Amino acid sequence: MSNDKLEGDARDAAMNTLDGWAEVYGRDAITKTFTFRDFNAAFGWMTRVALAAERMDHHPEWFNVYRTVDVTLSTHDAGGLTQRDIDLARIMDQFAA
Amino acid sequence: MSNDKLEGDARDAAMNTLDGWAEVYGRDAITKTFTFRDFNAAFGWMTRVALAAERMDHHPEWFNVYRTVDVTLSTHDAGGLTQRDIDLARIMDQFAA
Repeated sequence: MSNDKLEGDARDAAMNTLDGWAEVYGRDAITKTFTFRDFNAAFGWMTRVALAAERMDHHPEWFNVYRTVDVTLSTHDAGGLTQRDIDLARIMDQFAA
Repeated sequence: MSNDKLEGDARDAAMNTLDGWAEVYGRDAITKTFTFRDFNAAFGWMTRVALAAERMDHHPEWFNVYRTVDVTLSTHDAGGLTQRDIDLARIMDQFAA
């Protein structure tokens, strides 16, 4: 089930499919800081991610200052990290590549 | 000059043109939390603001989770609050109205 919390080997395997994401200390969530050339590039990326997130009905927590975006992903309904977070993280990586 | 720090009476007058903005404790900046109906509405508003910010070459610090957006405005070059922040804050208020 995509809404089951990811733990143990399944979590390790899922995390290994991502690029540069870290566990959040004290919370069952993952985080990554994306840095772009300028605000135009940063917000352009956010817009692509927003469209994908809306389609998935799964949304990020994100903080933008000029050309950087700090992202935190967790599944509120599940109280922790799920496959849905991994899927959104992978999309973010792809769009930033 | 739009890049002069706003202080004293000029600052009070400028703040009085805004709706619901507060001073940030320990930093020369202002903040407001905007709440929308859903992510679609929140990110739609962010997109309109992003276009205006890019045109002004003055960008916000903002944190979005689903339908809420926490905004902080300050002018880094000036080391504090300037008329440019007031102008951007007013645009944000107008787009959220």
